[in-house]
Amino acid sequence: MNDIPYRAALIIGAGPGVGASLARRFSAAGLKVAIAARSAPSLAAIAAETGADAFAADATDPTSVEKLFAAAEAKLGEIDVVVYNVGARIRGPLAELDPEAVRQAFEINAFGGFLAAREAARRFGPRGRGALFFTGATASLKGYAISAPFAMGKFALRALAESAARELGPKGVHVAHIVVDGVIRAPGQSDAIDATLHPDDIADAYVDLLRQKRSAWSFEVTVRPWVEKF
Amino acid sequence: MNDIPYRAALIIGAGPGVGASLARRFSAAGLKVAIAARSAPSLAAIAAETGADAFAADATDPTSVEKLFAAAEAKLGEIDVVVYNVGARIRGPLAELDPEAVRQAFEINAFGGFLAAREAARRFGPRGRGALFFTGATASLKGYAISAPFAMGKFALRALAESAARELGPKGVHVAHIVVDGVIRAPGQSDAIDATLHPDDIADAYVDLLRQKRSAWSFEVTVRPWVEKF
Amino acid sequence: MNDIPYRAALIIGAGPGVGASLARRFSAAGLKVAIAARSAPSLAAIAAETGADAFAADATDPTSVEKLFAAAEAKLGEIDVVVYNVGARIRGPLAELDPEAVRQAFEINAFGGFLAAREAARRFGPRGRGALFFTGATASLKGYAISAPFAMGKFALRALAESAARELGPKGVHVAHIVVDGVIRAPGQSDAIDATLHPDDIADAYVDLLRQKRSAWSFEVTVRPWVEKF
Amino acid sequence: MNDIPYRAALIIGAGPGVGASLARRFSAAGLKVAIAARSAPSLAAIAAETGADAFAADATDPTSVEKLFAAAEAKLGEIDVVVYNVGARIRGPLAELDPEAVRQAFEINAFGGFLAAREAARRFGPRGRGALFFTGATASLKGYAISAPFAMGKFALRALAESAARELGPKGVHVAHIVVDGVIRAPGQSDAIDATLHPDDIADAYVDLLRQKRSAWSFEVTVRPWVEKF
Repeated sequence: MNDIPYRAALIIGAGPGVGASLARRFSAAGLKVAIAARSAPSLAAIAAETGADAFAADATDPTSVEKLFAAAEAKLGEIDVVVYNVGARIRGPLAELDPEAVRQAFEINAFGGFLAAREAARRFGPRGRGALFFTGATASLKGYAISAPFAMGKFALRALAESAARELGPKGVHVAHIVVDGVIRAPGQSDAIDATLHPDDIADAYVDLLRQKRSAWSFEVTVRPWVEKF
Repeated sequence: MNDIPYRAALIIGAGPGVGASLARRFSAAGLKVAIAARSAPSLAAIAAETGADAFAADATDPTSVEKLFAAAEAKLGEIDVVVYNVGARIRGPLAELDPEAVRQAFEINAFGGFLAAREAARRFGPRGRGALFFTGATASLKGYAISAPFAMGKFALRALAESAARELGPKGVHVAHIVVDGVIRAPGQSDAIDATLHPDDIADAYVDLLRQKRSAWSFEVTVRPWVEKF
Repeated sequence: MNDIPYRAALIIGAGPGVGASLARRFSAAGLKVAIAARSAPSLAAIAAETGADAFAADATDPTSVEKLFAAAEAKLGEIDVVVYNVGARIRGPLAELDPEAVRQAFEINAFGGFLAAREAARRFGPRGRGALFFTGATASLKGYAISAPFAMGKFALRALAESAARELGPKGVHVAHIVVDGVIRAPGQSDAIDATLHPDDIADAYVDLLRQKRSAWSFEVTVRPWVEKF
Repeated sequence: MNDIPYRAALIIGAGPGVGASLARRFSAAGLKVAIAARSAPSLAAIAAETGADAFAADATDPTSVEKLFAAAEAKLGEIDVVVYNVGARIRGPLAELDPEAVRQAFEINAFGGFLAAREAARRFGPRGRGALFFTGATASLKGYAISAPFAMGKFALRALAESAARELGPKGVHVAHIVVDGVIRAPGQSDAIDATLHPDDIADAYVDLLRQKRSAWSFEVTVRPWVEKF
């Protein structure tokens, strides 16, 4: 059964948490799924469980990302859903931060998102359809103390998502930014009172977005545990 | 089929647009539905189509709202979903506005929401579960010129929703504020390019919220047409 | 010395805290000052200290506010600065709140602001100049738990301020919303580390706004103690 | 006359517009002023007019910025005000953007801000005082279509400013983010109706912030022309 008007998804950033859940939920919803990450090991388990096709790629390298999209479409046919789910929580007091760490935080959290958006725009724009989703965090909306690099990267990713929504939305591309506001439950961790976000429950929010009709699209959706302060 | 962890919904503000669509979608999702509005005629058609029970009530009158909740629970059993879907777009230049129009805008857009929230809190708080949703508008987030009364009411409703979410969320009550950012399609109106929001598509967002697991609840969701400027 | 392009201010809501400081700072900046509050006693001390003219008025009563503006202009000549500085921190759990308390919170925090804005609009609009300022609070931006009435009123006041800015700004009226984010120091209270806002320091922000040139007006300014969490 | 509790300012990014006005206003307020930019020519005119000391530096190069702060303090003594006023409006459709342009937009708009913040933190933190201001733009708050790189950079700068305010504020450092929302008037351009921001009027907002007492600091201030839509 596939009540979702898309056929194949590329999930960039596929660790054992949210990435794996996205692969699981998208597959269950009837989508073909490609998963990409820098290292093969984390991909293998997800691929085995969900039937997703795995691709090794460096999300911050323009050439690698171009090749990733080409390879995924060669294997699965037209990709019409792209999720940028990569992030790195780089932190430290301002006086002590290594400038290279700030650059790296930008590369991983935001620049890689741009590269994915660029490839998606090249395909979805001319086709007049597609879905392009970005995974945000509490730091997308608030710059905490001792956390400048992470906030800089996540704010930049949100800026990209907003700009992409305004450019590509009227072309038929559903752009969304999902803000995960809380601690994500680690794989295998139990949490009877649900004070942490279950990755499968997060992934459900992405699936709900894929089901939305174009007369009533959401751009930004925040998910947080019921007991989380905000 | 009912994959929604709720049993019966009370929709306050049930005109032929969003209110009717909510009744339709909630019924289709397996919920018992009660609809309330000031005048009986608009309710009759919705009741006939969806099987909902109709109640006449004045959403801005404390006694009427108390009676409404009592009557709805007497008929349907425990209500565990409440939607406040009442609004009035009262506008005008500051120098010319009648003070009574400003009070009325508050009564309809916000005070009635408080009365619904109070009845919901009295029931959902002790039970430790329930869903309480409020319908917002573009004016919930932006105070436009020549539109002070409407914005005052809708901002106040959003304040209520935020406060309710922070008070009742950790008690197990899912509070949400749905911002309808665009023109809602009139019943019977056709719109081939979906530049206006179809009420059924809006209602889908409410149903998605009802399906969310408590580890990943959304508080505020905005829906807008794909071609809408924002 | 008066480097401020205004001549006379009416401060509505003049208790011993911010209202008194506004009268003090405005007088020192060369403005004639009228102060208004419901009860005469609090006004007398301020009038004695600052030379302001005192007027008793009910800020939530349309007729009283009309008379206040007429009386103030009869005494001081054209008023070209209006500050709405009235507020009431009405709180309580949703299930226990008296509906009348919610209405009262709206009347004091927001409806009175509308009445002041209406009188200001009637004068400043045709004249093509003037300044209309509103005092906000942390609750203007965030709806805290157990605090719905106060938040509803303060959110509504902010909506009014935004709408007034968009309507009256292009007519030459400087509308501003000052958000006081923290605890205001009580008169006579000492606070060597400045963890609380000194009313005189708050009033300085209003004076700074009065000095702004129209090519670079600010609409919303937040003031908070250096050690305040945000 | 110097009623400002600071002694010497370093303005990074000193072109003929806002940078020159900051030098002018800071000098007039009694501060010693150092100005820095990549090329000497633009600095010479400002230095000649305002008496500021000029320094050539690359704001995006860690070593160059370290040397800049050392040289400025060697010449002027302790710097206690730092303004990061550098920006580059890099734009383009997502599908056509050169990845290097996106990196460059981050380097100029945000990474250079981090380098300045790091040097400021190293000095102001231990001293327990100082002011660190960042110049923002409309793009700091909204990601426009066809403008992703600029928005990514300006959002990231705002994240940095927020994080710096939360880290350094309680140490006695006044961090502020000034959002210039509108078109800045070009040097020599006349604009009788003030539809564009005069750089001197923008600079006044920075001076007002320097005068604020620590019991009532502002973090974010937006300035826009009276006729600007928002």
